[in-house]
Amino acid sequence: MRGSFGNSFRLTIFGESHGGAIGMVIDGIPAGTVIDEEEIARHMARRAPGNDPTATARKEPDRVKIVSGLFEGRATGAPLCGLIENTNTRSGDYAQLRARMRPGHADYAGSVKYAGYNDPRGGGHFSGRITAPLVFAGSIARALLAQKGITIGAHIAAIESVQDTPFDAVNVDAATLERMQESRFPLVDPGREEAMRARVAAARAEADSVGGVIECAAVGVPAGVGSPFFGSVESVVSQLLFSIPAIKSVEFGDAGWMARMRGSQTNDAMTYDENGRVACLTNHNGGVTGGITNGMPVVFRVCIKPTPSIGRAQQTVDLTTGENTMLTITGRHDPCIVPRAVVVVESALAIALCELMMDDASTKALK
Amino acid sequence: MRGSFGNSFRLTIFGESHGGAIGMVIDGIPAGTVIDEEEIARHMARRAPGNDPTATARKEPDRVKIVSGLFEGRATGAPLCGLIENTNTRSGDYAQLRARMRPGHADYAGSVKYAGYNDPRGGGHFSGRITAPLVFAGSIARALLAQKGITIGAHIAAIESVQDTPFDAVNVDAATLERMQESRFPLVDPGREEAMRARVAAARAEADSVGGVIECAAVGVPAGVGSPFFGSVESVVSQLLFSIPAIKSVEFGDAGWMARMRGSQTNDAMTYDENGRVACLTNHNGGVTGGITNGMPVVFRVCIKPTPSIGRAQQTVDLTTGENTMLTITGRHDPCIVPRAVVVVESALAIALCELMMDDASTKALK
Amino acid sequence: MRGSFGNSFRLTIFGESHGGAIGMVIDGIPAGTVIDEEEIARHMARRAPGNDPTATARKEPDRVKIVSGLFEGRATGAPLCGLIENTNTRSGDYAQLRARMRPGHADYAGSVKYAGYNDPRGGGHFSGRITAPLVFAGSIARALLAQKGITIGAHIAAIESVQDTPFDAVNVDAATLERMQESRFPLVDPGREEAMRARVAAARAEADSVGGVIECAAVGVPAGVGSPFFGSVESVVSQLLFSIPAIKSVEFGDAGWMARMRGSQTNDAMTYDENGRVACLTNHNGGVTGGITNGMPVVFRVCIKPTPSIGRAQQTVDLTTGENTMLTITGRHDPCIVPRAVVVVESALAIALCELMMDDASTKALK
Amino acid sequence: MRGSFGNSFRLTIFGESHGGAIGMVIDGIPAGTVIDEEEIARHMARRAPGNDPTATARKEPDRVKIVSGLFEGRATGAPLCGLIENTNTRSGDYAQLRARMRPGHADYAGSVKYAGYNDPRGGGHFSGRITAPLVFAGSIARALLAQKGITIGAHIAAIESVQDTPFDAVNVDAATLERMQESRFPLVDPGREEAMRARVAAARAEADSVGGVIECAAVGVPAGVGSPFFGSVESVVSQLLFSIPAIKSVEFGDAGWMARMRGSQTNDAMTYDENGRVACLTNHNGGVTGGITNGMPVVFRVCIKPTPSIGRAQQTVDLTTGENTMLTITGRHDPCIVPRAVVVVESALAIALCELMMDDASTKALK
Repeated sequence: MRGSFGNSFRLTIFGESHGGAIGMVIDGIPAGTVIDEEEIARHMARRAPGNDPTATARKEPDRVKIVSGLFEGRATGAPLCGLIENTNTRSGDYAQLRARMRPGHADYAGSVKYAGYNDPRGGGHFSGRITAPLVFAGSIARALLAQKGITIGAHIAAIESVQDTPFDAVNVDAATLERMQESRFPLVDPGREEAMRARVAAARAEADSVGGVIECAAVGVPAGVGSPFFGSVESVVSQLLFSIPAIKSVEFGDAGWMARMRGSQTNDAMTYDENGRVACLTNHNGGVTGGITNGMPVVFRVCIKPTPSIGRAQQTVDLTTGENTMLTITGRHDPCIVPRAVVVVESALAIALCELMMDDASTKALK
Repeated sequence: MRGSFGNSFRLTIFGESHGGAIGMVIDGIPAGTVIDEEEIARHMARRAPGNDPTATARKEPDRVKIVSGLFEGRATGAPLCGLIENTNTRSGDYAQLRARMRPGHADYAGSVKYAGYNDPRGGGHFSGRITAPLVFAGSIARALLAQKGITIGAHIAAIESVQDTPFDAVNVDAATLERMQESRFPLVDPGREEAMRARVAAARAEADSVGGVIECAAVGVPAGVGSPFFGSVESVVSQLLFSIPAIKSVEFGDAGWMARMRGSQTNDAMTYDENGRVACLTNHNGGVTGGITNGMPVVFRVCIKPTPSIGRAQQTVDLTTGENTMLTITGRHDPCIVPRAVVVVESALAIALCELMMDDASTKALK
Repeated sequence: MRGSFGNSFRLTIFGESHGGAIGMVIDGIPAGTVIDEEEIARHMARRAPGNDPTATARKEPDRVKIVSGLFEGRATGAPLCGLIENTNTRSGDYAQLRARMRPGHADYAGSVKYAGYNDPRGGGHFSGRITAPLVFAGSIARALLAQKGITIGAHIAAIESVQDTPFDAVNVDAATLERMQESRFPLVDPGREEAMRARVAAARAEADSVGGVIECAAVGVPAGVGSPFFGSVESVVSQLLFSIPAIKSVEFGDAGWMARMRGSQTNDAMTYDENGRVACLTNHNGGVTGGITNGMPVVFRVCIKPTPSIGRAQQTVDLTTGENTMLTITGRHDPCIVPRAVVVVESALAIALCELMMDDASTKALK
Repeated sequence: MRGSFGNSFRLTIFGESHGGAIGMVIDGIPAGTVIDEEEIARHMARRAPGNDPTATARKEPDRVKIVSGLFEGRATGAPLCGLIENTNTRSGDYAQLRARMRPGHADYAGSVKYAGYNDPRGGGHFSGRITAPLVFAGSIARALLAQKGITIGAHIAAIESVQDTPFDAVNVDAATLERMQESRFPLVDPGREEAMRARVAAARAEADSVGGVIECAAVGVPAGVGSPFFGSVESVVSQLLFSIPAIKSVEFGDAGWMARMRGSQTNDAMTYDENGRVACLTNHNGGVTGGITNGMPVVFRVCIKPTPSIGRAQQTVDLTTGENTMLTITGRHDPCIVPRAVVVVESALAIALCELMMDDASTKALK
């Protein structure tokens, strides 16, 4: 825990928003795996700011420089470290924030945790920018999964109260998920884009921000992945998802709906499909029962709170004066981080599946 | 992961519903801690079946026998192992289930995972019964936390569509949480009990089951507990919560509501309270920002699906014949596990907080 | 660490010498593995006291009762817990030791560590008896390895200054190692037994104890197992070996000799053997280079100090009076634990190899 | 395991000898710790090549660039990543080694492990150069320990058959250990330097190499650090020591001598010292009993094999031709790595003690 994830596909994250560099060490990439730097760049660009009007105008190329574990284009099997340099930082914007705690941010919690020594510039290690290494690791993870026929994709399920059509949890296919990856504003029903963008624009105009929901799915995941209890698919996926700043809930399948229903409505009836494989007629469980995949698409939703950096005066405390005060955050901020978070959510799922499948393989090695 | 949780407060769970015994090894209890077996028994009884008409009539005393780590009533500091013997098992009830997969259960996923060698009796290691050791560990964890002024309690926030009044996320206090612990059917508004019980009774009468929601809170948690990213409070708590069979979602604070709102509405304004301590005027974040506690009550909700064991005919597959079939589950089952799950949810939070606070102490040891 | 070992083949140990039970939880046994309780009993008997004049006369059957993870003779894939009840304990023997620290024992270190709350009876959790669960886990581990053609065996390389002939590090074979397993006093050169036993008898006659050396080997281990740095074969094996009370050194290959030699003498020249496989002409490295197996037999030696429980008056401290004092330990003790430790050492290697091979498999799963 | 060490003071190592950079991520440095880059540089210089005639003439400054976890000279509490760029690499020297396995090196084992995809240049991730990050982490660890009054030092106990006087295991003091740190060729008896250097020079002259022994001690370590079994001081220290390429044995206290003696000779008698503290009259156990420190100096020895890179023709295999062949290694190599390894060994002990003391603190946090 803390700055590391996983036993088999092991990640170590580091970096502060305005420090020298941020990065990730990945331990567990099979030796010989082709590392496709263009594919990494493609996913990094999906998260990078400056590419869409919903996001901050800051331009950060977020190019990953791999300094170890790579030789002649392939993973060596040794830990692979990717670095992303911090550029285009305007630290001046953040000066007043050292004393005055931004509401909804980690400022106060972090200040207590680290006795005031945390890097205050740009949120430091709490910055959403630190999700860039997750996307880097996720890019490699999804390439590993692709070899096994697994595809991951996510869409903007809602921005504020404007909702997209959900994935068809039974029939969602790889083509649909890949189409999501190709868009900066991925929607099942593209007709919702205009209304959603209008909400973001309205919030921006009022120096405010909006939240939303992301729905993510993986198809091609074999049955039998995951473990009961502490290594359940939900446990491992949610550990990663809740690492992502601003995600406040994780819902597998139709959790909220199931809680209001009866077992006769929520149980997913089972059948042999046309290929003789076991399948479910519905997928209310989101592809996971007993903590283990059942061969149906893995589907979950996360709620993302509005980014707390807003340009309006807010009541807060000043730790240096010990007084209450008002704070108006300046600088460039995203009025809505949901579109940029889509690839981060996908990455979390990809990483978790690698860990789970690798762990599963370990338990079968000495059979 | 897998069958173990934690680095500092380390749990190892084992057992199958109808095996010799189920249990837990706990490593990290401070030497000299008084182990109050009555207090353990009190919490175990809250989870045990046979005590309430919402639950199965099976009577299982669930007495924990501590076989190590205990000397003259105190923890020795060495790993403490608690065993719960399995009694009153009627394996005959489950015979047909070896081939016919129960919809909504782990049967199929587990059968693939373990190549058909998993113990099929009573759900085996997937049984809800395996949460009893979590309650045992949770009882010890909450005693440790109590010394630090931390109290945990939960209530039935909903059964089917009947909802209880939520906790007041800002002002909920220890007395309220303790009151919840004293009831087999804990509610903020006891007036909802009759309507909720009616839903359970109706489901039972129709050989069906119902789901629900549990809301849980901890008060007295100091600010500064948890870590950014993989060791966030939400990550660690959710890893444990999703270990509990039937929990399908975890929502911190007002996650679902926040996703539909603007930052100006969801940011928790900060202030110095009458004692000069930093506090928030609202607690939409559920006491956690940036993955770290902020001193406000920690509050979350979980959705619990209806127990999949229902007495109605359901469509499923027979793995031995390779044919589709109908299945009617017999035996004694809970029409609603929500009341019994309350203490399990509390236990998960208690365990997670011990782990997080112990980890936090380790990072300050060499200061 | 602490009471747990491993990520892939995960062990959790618990128990005190005179508590209710000692035991081990093993997580990672492939589902379907036949658990041969006779084979377990065979190895347990090799460690059990009361079977040889070198050891204490205490009779402890050390029968393992498996309470989880086992169904119809096979591993279910869920954590397997084995319990060994404590019987034939004479706690009265140990009464004076609560205040008076036995020299060379863990008494004082443990008393500080656990603030005096550790179980003082029979050494508590520090007792050599707690190695019994290691042998239990080792029995299962070696059965897993046997399927892959790996055999492990060890012999008494020395008792006091009487030395056995070392293994031939290049040509040692499975038959030799199996022969070692069959003896309560395993020697390469059985002609040394009389002289060794004479040393033990002499020490016993003088209320004293003797130390010794165990040499252990594994054959059939494929090249490529282990990792550089923290997961090196030597790191993982030694972590387990140094868990065994009384082991104070671990030497791979001809370490002591190599330190005094030149590279031209210590480098193991390589060649294709008659089967076209890469082999070394010598095996000074003990089958491990760069932390990874090279296909040669894995060979190491451990030094075992004389058991500190001796029947002679010794100078020590009395923590209750704060005075210096003399102590004469009574009760039944082994004058030499080396013969009983042989199987414990083998077990440590077996467990480590399972962990390493399972981890290795995990890194190849997504290739 | 694998590329990570520790739970509380967590290290992640990465890098290949001729890749972009090598480095270490350290997670667990208390926020606010002053990071003394000069002190780091001082220890790095002790390991760096090119500073002594016993070592290779390659000049590598080994300057650590800290890219995260540092703000205004202090640790932020977030993971701290230190990078060391690779410079002065002559890859051409290593070209023939891709096919021809260097005897005694990791080449063959690594080639199997990584299916031939490991970086062959300069030993890749197996290079002794990768110990530089250990020294970096060790520098920070020893600064943390210094605040608690703990000092670590080591000396060259032997080169080939020329031995130094051992530390006085009872009375060794901080001043002696600090004096060792100040020398590039640390000896208790400086009179041995000439003879030792002569052995190195002789080996160099004959295109050969020599091994040796390092003895290391820590003073000021309080009693009660470490755990029984898998978290024993010996287990944790040896896990790190065996990470260091060329170390083939680890001996705590007088392990080899104890194995040949009787308990009445090896037991360390105990007494109250002049300050009323418990002490031992001898320290054959090297400051550790039952896996836990007893307040005496922690003392151990490691054997270091001669570096396998020698300039003489050696018999080996060519993996590309499948033929036996002769190999003469060219390039610049150390005829003796013992002097440079001294600080690496000290670093391993410092890191292990941080981990153990931090873990110990975690178990007392909720008392």
